[in-house]
Amino acid sequence: MDFAFDDTTRDLAERTRAFLDEQVLPAEALHEEQLAATPGQWHFRPVVDELRVKAREAGLWNLFLPGENGAGLTNLQYAPLAEITGWSPRLAPVALNCSAPDTGNMEVLNDFGTPEQQERWLTPLLAAQIRSAFCMTEPDVASSDATNIGTRIRRDGDEYVITGRKWWSTGAMSPDAKIFIVMGKTDPDADRHRQQSMILVPRDTPGVTVVRPLTVFGYDDRDHGGHAEVAFDEVRVPASHLIAGEGDGFAIAQARLGPGRIHHCMRALGTGERALALMADRANERVAFGRTLAEQGVIREWVARSRIELESLRLLVLKTAWLMDTVGNRRAMTEIQAIKIAVPRAVQRILDRAIQTFGGAGVSQDTPLAELYAGVRTLRIADGPDEVHLNSLGRAQLRR
Amino acid sequence: MDFAFDDTTRDLAERTRAFLDEQVLPAEALHEEQLAATPGQWHFRPVVDELRVKAREAGLWNLFLPGENGAGLTNLQYAPLAEITGWSPRLAPVALNCSAPDTGNMEVLNDFGTPEQQERWLTPLLAAQIRSAFCMTEPDVASSDATNIGTRIRRDGDEYVITGRKWWSTGAMSPDAKIFIVMGKTDPDADRHRQQSMILVPRDTPGVTVVRPLTVFGYDDRDHGGHAEVAFDEVRVPASHLIAGEGDGFAIAQARLGPGRIHHCMRALGTGERALALMADRANERVAFGRTLAEQGVIREWVARSRIELESLRLLVLKTAWLMDTVGNRRAMTEIQAIKIAVPRAVQRILDRAIQTFGGAGVSQDTPLAELYAGVRTLRIADGPDEVHLNSLGRAQLRR
Amino acid sequence: MDFAFDDTTRDLAERTRAFLDEQVLPAEALHEEQLAATPGQWHFRPVVDELRVKAREAGLWNLFLPGENGAGLTNLQYAPLAEITGWSPRLAPVALNCSAPDTGNMEVLNDFGTPEQQERWLTPLLAAQIRSAFCMTEPDVASSDATNIGTRIRRDGDEYVITGRKWWSTGAMSPDAKIFIVMGKTDPDADRHRQQSMILVPRDTPGVTVVRPLTVFGYDDRDHGGHAEVAFDEVRVPASHLIAGEGDGFAIAQARLGPGRIHHCMRALGTGERALALMADRANERVAFGRTLAEQGVIREWVARSRIELESLRLLVLKTAWLMDTVGNRRAMTEIQAIKIAVPRAVQRILDRAIQTFGGAGVSQDTPLAELYAGVRTLRIADGPDEVHLNSLGRAQLRR
Amino acid sequence: MDFAFDDTTRDLAERTRAFLDEQVLPAEALHEEQLAATPGQWHFRPVVDELRVKAREAGLWNLFLPGENGAGLTNLQYAPLAEITGWSPRLAPVALNCSAPDTGNMEVLNDFGTPEQQERWLTPLLAAQIRSAFCMTEPDVASSDATNIGTRIRRDGDEYVITGRKWWSTGAMSPDAKIFIVMGKTDPDADRHRQQSMILVPRDTPGVTVVRPLTVFGYDDRDHGGHAEVAFDEVRVPASHLIAGEGDGFAIAQARLGPGRIHHCMRALGTGERALALMADRANERVAFGRTLAEQGVIREWVARSRIELESLRLLVLKTAWLMDTVGNRRAMTEIQAIKIAVPRAVQRILDRAIQTFGGAGVSQDTPLAELYAGVRTLRIADGPDEVHLNSLGRAQLRR
Repeated sequence: MDFAFDDTTRDLAERTRAFLDEQVLPAEALHEEQLAATPGQWHFRPVVDELRVKAREAGLWNLFLPGENGAGLTNLQYAPLAEITGWSPRLAPVALNCSAPDTGNMEVLNDFGTPEQQERWLTPLLAAQIRSAFCMTEPDVASSDATNIGTRIRRDGDEYVITGRKWWSTGAMSPDAKIFIVMGKTDPDADRHRQQSMILVPRDTPGVTVVRPLTVFGYDDRDHGGHAEVAFDEVRVPASHLIAGEGDGFAIAQARLGPGRIHHCMRALGTGERALALMADRANERVAFGRTLAEQGVIREWVARSRIELESLRLLVLKTAWLMDTVGNRRAMTEIQAIKIAVPRAVQRILDRAIQTFGGAGVSQDTPLAELYAGVRTLRIADGPDEVHLNSLGRAQLRR
Repeated sequence: MDFAFDDTTRDLAERTRAFLDEQVLPAEALHEEQLAATPGQWHFRPVVDELRVKAREAGLWNLFLPGENGAGLTNLQYAPLAEITGWSPRLAPVALNCSAPDTGNMEVLNDFGTPEQQERWLTPLLAAQIRSAFCMTEPDVASSDATNIGTRIRRDGDEYVITGRKWWSTGAMSPDAKIFIVMGKTDPDADRHRQQSMILVPRDTPGVTVVRPLTVFGYDDRDHGGHAEVAFDEVRVPASHLIAGEGDGFAIAQARLGPGRIHHCMRALGTGERALALMADRANERVAFGRTLAEQGVIREWVARSRIELESLRLLVLKTAWLMDTVGNRRAMTEIQAIKIAVPRAVQRILDRAIQTFGGAGVSQDTPLAELYAGVRTLRIADGPDEVHLNSLGRAQLRR
Repeated sequence: MDFAFDDTTRDLAERTRAFLDEQVLPAEALHEEQLAATPGQWHFRPVVDELRVKAREAGLWNLFLPGENGAGLTNLQYAPLAEITGWSPRLAPVALNCSAPDTGNMEVLNDFGTPEQQERWLTPLLAAQIRSAFCMTEPDVASSDATNIGTRIRRDGDEYVITGRKWWSTGAMSPDAKIFIVMGKTDPDADRHRQQSMILVPRDTPGVTVVRPLTVFGYDDRDHGGHAEVAFDEVRVPASHLIAGEGDGFAIAQARLGPGRIHHCMRALGTGERALALMADRANERVAFGRTLAEQGVIREWVARSRIELESLRLLVLKTAWLMDTVGNRRAMTEIQAIKIAVPRAVQRILDRAIQTFGGAGVSQDTPLAELYAGVRTLRIADGPDEVHLNSLGRAQLRR
Repeated sequence: MDFAFDDTTRDLAERTRAFLDEQVLPAEALHEEQLAATPGQWHFRPVVDELRVKAREAGLWNLFLPGENGAGLTNLQYAPLAEITGWSPRLAPVALNCSAPDTGNMEVLNDFGTPEQQERWLTPLLAAQIRSAFCMTEPDVASSDATNIGTRIRRDGDEYVITGRKWWSTGAMSPDAKIFIVMGKTDPDADRHRQQSMILVPRDTPGVTVVRPLTVFGYDDRDHGGHAEVAFDEVRVPASHLIAGEGDGFAIAQARLGPGRIHHCMRALGTGERALALMADRANERVAFGRTLAEQGVIREWVARSRIELESLRLLVLKTAWLMDTVGNRRAMTEIQAIKIAVPRAVQRILDRAIQTFGGAGVSQDTPLAELYAGVRTLRIADGPDEVHLNSLGRAQLRR
């Protein structure tokens, strides 16, 4: 259980931090301006493209991806880097080509794709020439129970025919999202976890309709392609678009979720740190009833609790990363669930305290806090609500 | 301590409930459509005007206002009516001309205005021909400490000259908000609570600039005039525009805040009831892992806790109303603070549970929950953050 | 919904308060001395007998019991009186002959007993000449599920034969507890709620063994007869000892539980008030780091939250009492469950804060706080754990 | 940041675990019997002596003490061992001569004692031939503020004269506690942290009076010498009894507190693990309403939350130990405060859940839960209440 950062990690962390401080945070205001000037548009704004050029030059690119195609880092090495990007979750991850859902989709293609699939979709994704979406959750069912999935993928000669309705397809509002990975049932009569398959559906395939954008606490997240409801109506793709084999969908989803969850948690810790830093600055500056907020016991308690929560949960995230690296994602399942449950809740609390410290500025566009809150709140729902994981983790513990 | 509803109240409650069910709730979808079609516009949408006509016909108008100019109800009589409007807080209060900040502004004019001020501003407000804004909070200081206020109101001959910067002036983005009530200091050297005055500033007075809208989480609240930052730069108004006398500003603010706070709490209870009703419907319909959510222990606990919180806090709100009616707002101060602290927190928790029960739909526009959450969250900041009230209430208790 | 106290209540409350202040609280120290001098003894100490004489003289006797045999008060009238006794829960209720489990047992005899049963047991209980125990909970099963009950009551000619094992028979360690009300199954094959019966078992009946005392945290509660495990081994009593009819046990238990629960909640509120009063005194006296605790924000928040919780829950208790008086215990079930869940938790929190305010004195015998904590903590388990009630209340709400 | 256990640690942990499972846990019942048979006696019971012989033979002795005089372990090495002893905190630590307050007192003598002091007191303590007490906290002042200390240590020729009153002198009720380390002021006019000194006072010195025992939630903790109030009335000891120099008292106290706090936290984790294990066993066995508790969602959530809390806080404790080992106690201050605040609270919550799972058995002597609860609750007060540490930690964070 060695969480020490090696030289590679320390070097990358230093450079990522410098990139955040010197490039990303100063660009946030410009990003806001560009967004304000372009309502109803869903692609990346120019500042993102500029940051990407700089990030690539700085060697901070595809850090999330293990193996030859990516930076080749372990989860433990990637953890502090992802945390740093969580300070500016709308700008830093995309700048480094390390943002969901593209990261997870690249992992799927990297681990399960055929050479042809990789060449056609993975290569441009790694180069940030296109984007992608992951179409799994459905509006009509509790998607945390995979047997509920209603989308059908039917074999018809050399093709598969896909029919169903998905939503929360993050990024899919962007015209740059050229490829959708769609989860559906190929065999509803198979074993519980062998009914599902995943298939690649190019955006412009007939029958694909991007129906509408979804909002998150009023935010459309249009800076990174929003969240779409997507309808698939008898959509036909070549059989070669299937990822791995029929019935492998659940296993691929599970393989994708482990890293996805820990990445979210790593970034959320950075978000929590930023909230705490903002809160501290505010508390030191703001005067009420003759004293700065920093001199008031209640605020000190908030700061102390926030610090304790971040410290203990960061260690749990690092342990999880180390376990994933050493014994594999499956055997790190309990820890992955644990951080998936605990980190977003803690960061939500910290953001709530920060908002309260700022008063009106906290809920408005004058601080990033409310938008960060909306994002972190959603993590308690994404990839299965907390309650599903609490139940599963509890049941596993009780089995001993 | 008699909270029984009399015949007047029962009759009005029945009719208000019917109006909600038959007119307001069915109109919500149309309201959304009209809003979606008119981004960047800050006035009421047509559906509001139609509802207002019907409300007036139904005799459900200005219910909030005691005395001859209004419906003449006590706080205890008004409580259940306001709660009902809280089921649809964006549409029902405006339909009945019972929405903040106009309610508070009408109270100020009713209680402290000269006949001329009343004729010019109160009469059209009561008829819903114009709207108004309340300019108290300032961006640069902790406004919960009234001695911090930076805006100056200087006497110059027959005029007052106002200079300062306000924000969170709710409704002020709407061009219909013809009159601003502005709080500022006339005498910074007077006693702590005699430094402030209130003055009427017509929107079109030279030197008044509505600078920008503020968002609440991602919502601009443009349906009811948003929340504005407003600059006052050497703004000159006749001396007759002062409300009551110089130095009366703090007392007027206090008089305005009592009813304002309890109205917010009454409505928040209705919002909590709606969240609970939505949660119950969802729980009964949604199936996960072979059972409805309603059959699962964790959801039942959420529902039970929500019900208990609403029941106990409703009684505290009713007691507060009854106290205000019988011993006056000043002597009900502890109770007003208590509900101001406790109700929004409880309703925030209930909304959080409801959101979690809905999953993705809960944070999106497909349910009203996220927007309600944003609104209720703001109540913990508005009129002074919880912490100021907790401190004050605690100190008072410790004094005994 | 009128919670106003009538003249009778106001008069009794005043006198009960005076009795508490002048007789009970000053006697606590002597009671402690008498207890310290008599370890291992389970009957009331002399100070209790003296207080009882005074209480009877003062007309403060059997206040809990409605109807002719008692003081004839409604639940709403009794509520403030019971709350006052909760300030000194070990001494005041027994002084007024208003302490569990005798109160509940007297109610059972009063409502369901035959004239012979009443003459033999109720009359001396009302006169405080004897005491009683209620033998319902069993060590081997989850007693909140009445179908689990293992004790058997078998008819054999003119007798019933009782066999089973009970625990948490409060008061049964005292030799003065002359009569046990025992719950058991007469017909395990009957409908779920018609299997159980209640029967009177005199303490000295052959086959009755008081096995051992149970402790609550480290307290043996020997001042009021402790909590016993009691074995019944082929215990024979005349058939006339059955209370009401065979199969009526569950209904009698339910009838007994309603008042029992609200009485516990009323007293718990008084306990919370005392904790708050002690905390306030301490905070005003104690100095740390140059300021009294009362000047520190965190303590003020604790006091404020405690006050808010007590105020809102008292109103819920009063409403419950009023409902029981006006629509009956059955239709007040939701409210009874609500207070049963909410009040002990809140008072536990308040006691925890008070303990923390006192530091070492708070957990020791130098304040009553730790012992009060142990008592209130137990309420979350007694008469069914919170979780059973939360589940039931939640399910009922979801049914609507 | 390497928390991996080395071979020494793994070996010792295995042996300590075996000792717990084979010797300590089976001896708990006998210990209870011996305690029940000897009320009012404060020394160790025979079973302790027998366990000590076995522990020494097993090489599990004085594991807490670094350096030559002890087992020579680092904090990181000791952490898992101390955690194991926390499963049976009344028996295991004393069996291994690793129980407070003797551990802290041995550290003081080891680090600051003269050779004479060490020979006379440390040697027999290491051999468990005598015991000791630490007399720091005072009944009349908030002892967390060291400037409040009222005890005076006055130089008079070759002697020091000590006058004051202490309490919560754990172990001091036992006649085996032959030596008291007393904190007092030698120079009330010196700098804030140079006013205090520590001095050795043999129990039988004239003027020393062990006044009375204090209880903790009804427990007298007589198995390990209880908690005493001790009066020092013009007590004279040779000047050579001073530990280190005049004015060094505060520094010695700080040096003692760091290890003391982390040891408490390590053990508390073990206590939490035991509570969780007991809760799991109960949940798997107990049936209510047709299902085991383990099948019910609420219990699963409790178990899951408990597991997550223990995992994350254990890592924080290990990091703290590692920091103390690598950068020293002073620079680990934030982490020491963090675990001091967070661990007892979490374990208190876990114990509360376990108690609730057990119902009546949970608060009684039939499980160790209530007594463990009392002990862990006290940790939130001992060595300064949480609030002092939260304030200090928060202030430090805000300073950055």
